[in-house]
Amino acid sequence: MAENIRPIAEAFYQASADRDIKRALSMIDDNVDWLVQGPVDVFSFFGQRRGKAAVLEGYREIARRLEITSYQVELLLVDGDRAAALIRLFAIVRATGKVMSVRTSQFSRFCEGKIVEMRAVVDTFDLVEQTVGRPLELAVDAPELIVA
Amino acid sequence: MAENIRPIAEAFYQASADRDIKRALSMIDDNVDWLVQGPVDVFSFFGQRRGKAAVLEGYREIARRLEITSYQVELLLVDGDRAAALIRLFAIVRATGKVMSVRTSQFSRFCEGKIVEMRAVVDTFDLVEQTVGRPLELAVDAPELIVA
Repeated sequence: MAENIRPIAEAFYQASADRDIKRALSMIDDNVDWLVQGPVDVFSFFGQRRGKAAVLEGYREIARRLEITSYQVELLLVDGDRAAALIRLFAIVRATGKVMSVRTSQFSRFCEGKIVEMRAVVDTFDLVEQTVGRPLELAVDAPELIVA
Repeated sequence: MAENIRPIAEAFYQASADRDIKRALSMIDDNVDWLVQGPVDVFSFFGQRRGKAAVLEGYREIARRLEITSYQVELLLVDGDRAAALIRLFAIVRATGKVMSVRTSQFSRFCEGKIVEMRAVVDTFDLVEQTVGRPLELAVDAPELIVA
């Protein structure tokens, strides 16, 4: 019989909301396949990571750049061995002191009580723009992008 | 007893993958609450839309800007009256002729066989950068963003 991953997924997101990285990491498999979709050349915590140590380094990179002040799991779906979470983050950008908010979704797969696969989508334009602290410049080179 | 939304969700994403907008729209409630997270000042199909007519206008806006050549539902989870889909899109940017790819996630809620709520997250930095066709300029004003 398949394991019921709902309590495990809930515990993982509770740990994440509590910013209890140690507890969150205890629910991540040593050989996890982790992908946060986004521009890896802008934020090094984007991109593909293999293994728990690499994921921990990603968490540390986020912590160096952002002080997360609120982590709200707006939705959490469980289906078989997979979970999908819609998350809203509020953070202070350490470089500028500004408050930012961003939404992200995380699709995870569990095996024997641990996350073995993670696929995340982040609203990265908002993230980058808010981290930079000004609108990104598009209008001059790409006027067709600005639509009424 | 709760309705089983899995076949409805599968039919909606099959219609979407087929780019059969009419069939997809037939599964959207007239008063749907629709939110695609992203910079509404850059792409008018981002933002909050209320009602099927507004969603149709969003679909038309996408079609004016992008020729979608591939729509792959990588994951589809169903839990109660909600579904979560992880989608990979390939498209040709009409303004430049370039091919782009982007990931999006969609969290939907169903009632009486129709989508009444939609929350989508798009990897918008990639979307904007690929649509512009060049790297967005960050380095000069925000050197702290470029990390090794």
